[in-house]
Amino acid sequence: MAQNKPLIFITNDDGYTSGGIKALIESVKGLGKIVVVAPDGPRSGMSGAISSTSPLRVTRIHQEDDLEIYSCNGTPVDCVKLGISEIAGRKPDLVVTGINHGSNASICVLYSGTMGAAIEGCIFKIPSIGFSLLDHSHEADFSTAKTIARNISNHVLHNGLPIGTCLNVNIPKGNDIKGVKVCRQTAGQWVDEFFRSKDGSGKEVFWLTGRFQNDEPADQATDEWALAQGYATIVPVKVDMTDHSILQDLKFMEEI
Amino acid sequence: MAQNKPLIFITNDDGYTSGGIKALIESVKGLGKIVVVAPDGPRSGMSGAISSTSPLRVTRIHQEDDLEIYSCNGTPVDCVKLGISEIAGRKPDLVVTGINHGSNASICVLYSGTMGAAIEGCIFKIPSIGFSLLDHSHEADFSTAKTIARNISNHVLHNGLPIGTCLNVNIPKGNDIKGVKVCRQTAGQWVDEFFRSKDGSGKEVFWLTGRFQNDEPADQATDEWALAQGYATIVPVKVDMTDHSILQDLKFMEEI
Repeated sequence: MAQNKPLIFITNDDGYTSGGIKALIESVKGLGKIVVVAPDGPRSGMSGAISSTSPLRVTRIHQEDDLEIYSCNGTPVDCVKLGISEIAGRKPDLVVTGINHGSNASICVLYSGTMGAAIEGCIFKIPSIGFSLLDHSHEADFSTAKTIARNISNHVLHNGLPIGTCLNVNIPKGNDIKGVKVCRQTAGQWVDEFFRSKDGSGKEVFWLTGRFQNDEPADQATDEWALAQGYATIVPVKVDMTDHSILQDLKFMEEI
Repeated sequence: MAQNKPLIFITNDDGYTSGGIKALIESVKGLGKIVVVAPDGPRSGMSGAISSTSPLRVTRIHQEDDLEIYSCNGTPVDCVKLGISEIAGRKPDLVVTGINHGSNASICVLYSGTMGAAIEGCIFKIPSIGFSLLDHSHEADFSTAKTIARNISNHVLHNGLPIGTCLNVNIPKGNDIKGVKVCRQTAGQWVDEFFRSKDGSGKEVFWLTGRFQNDEPADQATDEWALAQGYATIVPVKVDMTDHSILQDLKFMEEI
């Protein structure tokens, strides 16, 4: 009996109808059987959020030999949990998420639903990669991003990743990228974040907006630097958030 | 002119009416001026989620000399962003979150709104601590947790924390805890997560549930081990999720 084809699980945070997820499906086509369980609408900025108090629903959208697509009313992490546990039928060999419409570099890894889903795949001990293109447009050109996503996915599918570590891949806009750099997460924060406005009844409301402030713009080891120079970036991301470097220094807190 | 009192910012993910946030307010009373901006209802499992497409609203609930309480329709991270940028009036000296009703040990740090909010305080470069009690009950006894929260908050208020690192503090149920341990995050995952059921029209729905599987139950360096032994735990948590240990090993990916 022929060995099973590799099983590739896909989700995103822009919803199953987005251009980015279609590009990701095309980019891994032929590498294995593909199961997509993705949100039924936009879920940007959902991070690792889970739906603990409301019921989840799944709808089959499309089925052919090597491609099944389902929509789900939950978060990106819900899609991973439900998709792997209840829909995929067996443990996937690879989880790929995106291709996100917009950057998930630097601290955006902490807010991103695309990366929340990749981290969840990693918690399942499955090699996992989140892909993002630095272009918010609905008509973004994913052609370079697709080539990069296919190359990295194919490599990881055959060589794996260390358990507990996934990849955050960001790709500059345009077709003249300089290459790929392995980087660390840039330190920074979002500032000037709120726009004050009024609702229909004249009450004050706040809209989240703002701009990214890079705290180390000259550091060539960071993802923001490499992206600004025109490189695609790969940041290895750990599920273990412990600051191991200060565990010993904090021991005195056992006495306070 | 007398120096300003320290400003302590508080939020949580169980909502501003929860017993846990009342306990946290009491525990830090007298250490400074307190500003609370907390969700208007439960937001458990919201992780680092942000509201990027819907308007945020804030309502003042209570005001006295050293205590202001506001409710907000957003996520815990929204409460931190909006509270610090638009409500607090100046940069807080300390961010404390919780006291959460239920554990945020091990990988729950990645799903927790309480810890999402503490991590956000840390991104603002403010010393930040998330507190959780291992008791989901509405009538949970917070007396021991309050003492621990006050001691740790008072220490961090006066001595700070390294920029980019916050604390995840978990406290066992009951009043006979053995002490406090500084630990690392336990490796594990949630399994058997879904309960299949029917909605009112007979359609299938899935409810997120499940049980935690500890991948290293015998390791005395982990938070789950210490909690099982009756210790409160402090895990230092980093904003930088980069797996620095494999950056060099991944350099070959720049060529694929």
